[in-house]
Amino acid sequence: MRAAQRNGEDVAGLTATRLTALLTAFRPGDDMLGVSELSRRTGVPKSSVHRLVGHLVAQGLLDRENGAVRLGLKLFEIGQLATQQRGLVDAARPYLADLREATRNTVHLAVLEGTEVVYLDIVRGPDAPNLPSRIGGRFPAHATAVGKAILAFSPDSVLEKVIATGLPRIGPRTITAPGLLRRSLAKVRADGLAHDREESRVGVVCVASPLLDGDGRPRAGISISGWSNRVRPGRVAPAVRTTALTLSRTLS
Amino acid sequence: MRAAQRNGEDVAGLTATRLTALLTAFRPGDDMLGVSELSRRTGVPKSSVHRLVGHLVAQGLLDRENGAVRLGLKLFEIGQLATQQRGLVDAARPYLADLREATRNTVHLAVLEGTEVVYLDIVRGPDAPNLPSRIGGRFPAHATAVGKAILAFSPDSVLEKVIATGLPRIGPRTITAPGLLRRSLAKVRADGLAHDREESRVGVVCVASPLLDGDGRPRAGISISGWSNRVRPGRVAPAVRTTALTLSRTLS
Repeated sequence: MRAAQRNGEDVAGLTATRLTALLTAFRPGDDMLGVSELSRRTGVPKSSVHRLVGHLVAQGLLDRENGAVRLGLKLFEIGQLATQQRGLVDAARPYLADLREATRNTVHLAVLEGTEVVYLDIVRGPDAPNLPSRIGGRFPAHATAVGKAILAFSPDSVLEKVIATGLPRIGPRTITAPGLLRRSLAKVRADGLAHDREESRVGVVCVASPLLDGDGRPRAGISISGWSNRVRPGRVAPAVRTTALTLSRTLS
Repeated sequence: MRAAQRNGEDVAGLTATRLTALLTAFRPGDDMLGVSELSRRTGVPKSSVHRLVGHLVAQGLLDRENGAVRLGLKLFEIGQLATQQRGLVDAARPYLADLREATRNTVHLAVLEGTEVVYLDIVRGPDAPNLPSRIGGRFPAHATAVGKAILAFSPDSVLEKVIATGLPRIGPRTITAPGLLRRSLAKVRADGLAHDREESRVGVVCVASPLLDGDGRPRAGISISGWSNRVRPGRVAPAVRTTALTLSRTLS
């Protein structure tokens, strides 16, 4: 009896792991994926993929069409709740629209997850370059202004984890030396503003500021991104900082 | 051996069902939920909830804080892919912004799921009432212009399913008689436009048009919502219809 129960728990754990692997196997640009491709991406045997996909389709988490599957709309509904419960995106939306209107450049709202930022919202401006960032997408935190704005106000352990990733070069001027990153973040902490000139991407400049809760902990960051030869960081910085301060107060 | 395998499959199916039940147990306005509340909402025994929540936290689908859990950011990332793979939201965004700017009212982008619409995007206008709709939220299709715009171009079986739900009254003038709904949809089919005057909500008027694919099947709908005593449907209708036609062409 105990052995059977143990076995049941093992199966449940394995199933949970495999279901998550299937849901996270999809990438931007994918549409329908077949059983073989899902098996290849997840390492789950084809017969198990086939069976688990059947369960996920029955639950509405995947949609089936001509034998292949894609992510179901129910995942979009659940995913929206995941951020709406944090109250951040809804509260930030009108402020981001104002910032975009005032600067005519692209506004990002992002949170830190591990060593990367995840974009919660993006409002594209008419004067900005066509950046490849997407809502729900990720970017290495050390290589972008909005990531540095959050990192500067995060516990030391967070920065140490980022440094342990090796600080890969992303743009032509990405900070790849731990000492330089620490000094850069000390300045961000003093100013409440982070800058990035071609650290994330050639030809692009960003200015960011953190959204802090009542205890000074960073909940998120906002940034403006534009062409490095058109945007003067000194001119947009006060707008970014003001919006971040207002929004921080509104949220807490 | 076969019995053990059968048992394993049963456990996997049950686990898939329960994991989905846990992920869909969260509602707008919830933040952290405890094991007891999750058990109450899903009907899954507490000990199983405890174990499955552990798996979901380990996989990043739920976040744990002080013994309670909330939906994890990974679900937001997966959920974004679910719609981005459909290409619809990204393609529609600038058009919705134009429509909002031209009409100063609130623009919705929605798809039909079963008998309800799900809002994929909402751009709120300065002149519009503060509607309770939210991105990822649902609304009965028969009671709103955007739902009727999609229904009018859907197969008969879809409409029959909607009628079988009993056409509940949502706003003061919701169409609750099957015959009236059929006649209303015939007009929508002829015009490419759907209207809703206080069918969804007191004091609110909506004008909608469907996004059709190359074969004339409805992929989604767009609508304008505003105060019924301020918006003249005849004035915004051409803008809604033009945007829907342009976007339909862009998508196919």
